[in-house]
This record gives sequence, C-alpha cells and structure tokens, in this order.
Amino acid sequence: MTPDIHNSLHVVDGLQYSNWSRPLLEELRTGGLTAVHVTLAYWEDARASLARIGDWQRRFREHADLIIHARTVGDVLAAKAARKTAIIFGFQNCSPIENDLSLVQTFHELGVRFMQLTYNNQSLLGSGCYEPNDAGVSRFGREVIREMNRVGLVIDLSHSSQRTSLDAIELSRRPVVISHANPNFFHQNVRNKSDRLLKALAERGGLLGFSLYPLHIGGADCPLESFCDMVKRAAELMGIDHIGFGTDSVRGWPDSELDWMRNGRWTEGASGSAKPSWPEWPAWFRTPADFPNLTHALLRHGFARGEVAKIMGDNWLRIFRDGFGPG
Amino acid sequence: MTPDIHNSLHVVDGLQYSNWSRPLLEELRTGGLTAVHVTLAYWEDARASLARIGDWQRRFREHADLIIHARTVGDVLAAKAARKTAIIFGFQNCSPIENDLSLVQTFHELGVRFMQLTYNNQSLLGSGCYEPNDAGVSRFGREVIREMNRVGLVIDLSHSSQRTSLDAIELSRRPVVISHANPNFFHQNVRNKSDRLLKALAERGGLLGFSLYPLHIGGADCPLESFCDMVKRAAELMGIDHIGFGTDSVRGWPDSELDWMRNGRWTEGASGSAKPSWPEWPAWFRTPADFPNLTHALLRHGFARGEVAKIMGDNWLRIFRDGFGPG
Repeated sequence: MTPDIHNSLHVVDGLQYSNWSRPLLEELRTGGLTAVHVTLAYWEDARASLARIGDWQRRFREHADLIIHARTVGDVLAAKAARKTAIIFGFQNCSPIENDLSLVQTFHELGVRFMQLTYNNQSLLGSGCYEPNDAGVSRFGREVIREMNRVGLVIDLSHSSQRTSLDAIELSRRPVVISHANPNFFHQNVRNKSDRLLKALAERGGLLGFSLYPLHIGGADCPLESFCDMVKRAAELMGIDHIGFGTDSVRGWPDSELDWMRNGRWTEGASGSAKPSWPEWPAWFRTPADFPNLTHALLRHGFARGEVAKIMGDNWLRIFRDGFGPG
Repeated sequence: MTPDIHNSLHVVDGLQYSNWSRPLLEELRTGGLTAVHVTLAYWEDARASLARIGDWQRRFREHADLIIHARTVGDVLAAKAARKTAIIFGFQNCSPIENDLSLVQTFHELGVRFMQLTYNNQSLLGSGCYEPNDAGVSRFGREVIREMNRVGLVIDLSHSSQRTSLDAIELSRRPVVISHANPNFFHQNVRNKSDRLLKALAERGGLLGFSLYPLHIGGADCPLESFCDMVKRAAELMGIDHIGFGTDSVRGWPDSELDWMRNGRWTEGASGSAKPSWPEWPAWFRTPADFPNLTHALLRHGFARGEVAKIMGDNWLRIFRDGFGPG
C-alpha cells in the first residue's frame, strides 16, 4: 500500500473532541483528514455555546493555513482541494437550545450541523443511554426533530438509549446518524448499539461512525484485524453505504476534563469513588495522524478500493450533501 | 404628485421599533417601504437577543408574503422586486455582545447589521448622550469598532454623546451612521446633533437619518414645511448624499414599554415622578403608511427628483452596499 491511496480519498472523522492547539490541528493534516465533526458542547447552555463558537472563530483566523469552517459539502470539497481540513460544528447534547425551539435555526445559521438529542442522561428531548428507564422521544423532542429536519441539522443518536433512538429514526423525515459508537455484536457496552437499531438506522438512509474509543472496542489491546472483522460484519448487516468512522478522538485534555465531559455538574459521584482518567488507545490508532492505518488495514482485509473510499469518507459526504441544507 | 413617483423609489426607514403584528407589517407595505432597520435590543444581553432573533424567525415564516430578512443590499433589492419589505436587524446598544468580542461576528452571522455603541448611558464602549461626563471611546470600544469594521456591522451613533461619536467617526475605517436623530440647529435636544458632528460624519461618508419622533422635532405640531426646511439646510451642511430617514416610529406598545425602552432596569426614577407615556405624532406622519407624504413634501419643497430618491432611500442603499460585507 502506498500512502497515495489514502491521500487520494476523502477522509472524514465523524466525531472528535480535543483541546485544540496548533500541534493537534497539524495531526489532522498528517492523518490526511478532509473533514472532522468537532464537539462544541456537552452540557453548555446557549450562552456558553456562543463562547465555544467564538473560540473557533479565533482558531479559524489563527490557523487559516490548516483549517476552515465548513457549512456545506461544497466547503468540505474546497478544503480538500486546498489541502486543509474542514471543521464541522456539532453538539453532543441538546443543552445549547435550552427550551427554545428557535435556537435550532439560530445555531444552524451559526454553522452547527449535528446535534445529539441526549447525552447519556435524560434530556428535554429523550432518554440517554445510561438511563434505566426510557420513555422515548418527548413532546419537545418531536418539535425539535421536525425543526432539525426543516433547517438541515443532522440528528445524532450516539449517546441516546434504544427506544429514544428508534423513535427518532421513525419520526425523522431525513437520515439520522450515530456518529460514534460500535455494534454490540462486537463489544457489549451501554454506548454500543443493537443489530435492530443499526438495521433501522441503515434502512432510513443513516450512517454509523465506528468508534476507536477504547471503552467501545474492549480496550487498547483490541487487534486491528478484529476491528476490521467488525467492519465487515457491520457492512453485511447495514450495507456498505451506511458505515464510516467517528473515532471519538480526545486529545490534549487533563483528566479533570473527563469528569466534566461525563458528568457535567449534575452529580458529584457518578464516576465512582476513584477519579476517572483517560484510557490508553490502541497502538494502531493513538491519534488522528494514524488515519492512514485504517485505510491500509481495510484494503488488506479484502475490502475493494471503492468500498474503502465509502467507509473512509464518501458515505459521510453523502450525509453532508443530503443533510445540511433546508429540508 | 401621483403616487407612482413614491412607489418607483427605494424607500428606506433607518430605524423603527414596534410591537410587530400583521397590521403593522401591512402599514409598511402601504407606506411603500423597501427596507426597514428594526430594533432587536435596547438592554438585552446575548441570550435575550437570541430570543428576539427567534421572534423574527417566526414573523418571517408567518408573514412571508409581506417581509423578508435582508442581510445584503441584494436581499433588499429582491424584496423591492417582490413587493415585500426587507427587514434589517439592529441593536440600539452594545449590551448583546456583553464583554465578548467574538459576539460581534456571531451576531453578524445571524444577520445583525447595525449596532449602537451606547444607548443614552455609559456603556462598555463609550458614553451615551445623557451622561454628564464623556470620556469618549473605551479600550474595549476600540476593539469592537475594529471588529465591526472587519465583519461589516455598521456603527450607529444615534444615542451616543459628542466626544464618543467624534472618536468613533475618527477610529472607524468605514462610514458610520446616525440612524435616527436631527440637527440641533433645527431643534435643540440632547438626542439631536451638533453641526460639527454632522459635518464630521458626512466627511467620512456617513449618513444621518432624520427622525420624526416628536421629541426630536419639537412636538407634534411641527409643520411639515419647517421639517423640509431642516432637510434643505442639512443637505447644504452635509451634502445630499449623506441624509435619509430614520423615523424612530414606535407602534403598538403600551406605555410600560416606554419605561423599559428608556430605563431598562438600571433605575426606578430616571423618568421623573410621573409615569411616561408615548407622545402624539405629527398629523403628516402618524405611521409608516404616511411615508408617501414625505416624498411629496420634498418634491413640493423644491428638491429635484434625483435628490428625493437619494433622501428617501438610495443613500441608505449605499450604506448597505458598502457597509454590510467584510471590510
């Protein structure tokens, strides 16, 4: 395998959350990333989310040689042509819209293109994947799904529970995504997804982004070949057009950020008595600079070049093209 | 004078603040308004300003046959062609950006095109026209002026004091406006402006919008002919390219709104012991539906048709064209 094959592809990472600095943005270039969906908010309200957008305005100005803000698939293709990485905004929770339906359009106008309905816990829209009871999509949730469909803000169900996810897939008139998770048939985890859910997602034109986060693959010693087996089986279950990557790469954060990310300010104790620390990543994917390893492994594993192109980015480009404009 | 003359013009009102309902939007159509700069905020912070934008999103959907949201001069011309009124967002204070420079770009992205540096009182940026002491533009004010210049958010000095206004005119690399006020030579009032300020404004390519607010014209019995005399003298002082209208029309509000508008929540007593009430308007301009009266009066008063076209809207269109894009 020559590096040229990887560099000729559109390479998309469907989810990253890092403490961005120039070295980390340079990793994206080293990894040949065409586009990255970055997380702006976990628990932030509307005002705090505006501050996160302000942070990105400064990054786009200071690192204009490395990154651009993408609002459309056209922006993504232009970034690729200019050898820059397109940055796409997303929220991992609905906290930024508070209880105000108009904020869906407002944040879309500011470039937000993905929003999760829930983040682990019950939200105003539905149940998170750690909730023991799941009442599905709420009244406000139905309104928000309709509004997200209208303006072109893609629904992300990565941290939602099963009933809420199935409800959302059924309610949405447009394809939805699970930007970063894996099938439960590969590794049983509260964040991974059932065959039933993955099939429903694919049948409605959606996409699953495979996570490399250690807890979603059974730990850092997960062999790359086992991971590729999982991709193969997911392709058989969902179809080759409905899979991609969403690595959940988290770079540059202190352990304290993990506590914020998981628990916000809703609890003092949900992470257990010990303070959590960031897990070790597999040797074959320590940072986004290792993205070429994924391309080469899939080719070695027997995927055709066109199939690899779909998995590495073309399927995400379809979601961008069909998902980001008015419905 | 036939009504056709008025209808053939681009008619712009540089400032209105009304409690918008369908009948009031219909008044804009009756008055032949091509574009109106509407006020979204007096004292609101960032979050509350987002709610005002949400209010307008709903109005644009519900009254799509009457109004459209304009972000560019092209949008304004398209509105005229479609026989709709273009709505342009503005803030009468800098409270929406709080102390966060990034919010200048953020609100510009949401369509805000005018912002006053101050509203009557001292702000983080400079002094309002009711302050006894005026230290001019502040450190943050200089940053905000530079940023407004960069993104294309037009500086409005209507409620600023003289030194702050002169500072801003000097600091700004792009033309600034006084969207709604009158010359002090016509009616001496803390809100009206000195010859020195008006000349400085015009010399830097700016624009004064003549106010019809009763307190700015000496009361409801101000004769239309006196008003036209003032326009004539202002044209001589500033040049025919630097004047227009900003009526300060306020429709549909209870008296309690006047108290909020003037005093926000910073005082209980600034309006004096008596509760303020809305003033009576002149018979020749009770509502924006009376805009044709202004066109006809200026023509009767001896202005050439081309001069009237400039005053009624073309000068504002120049500000929109030159002021709303990146600098």
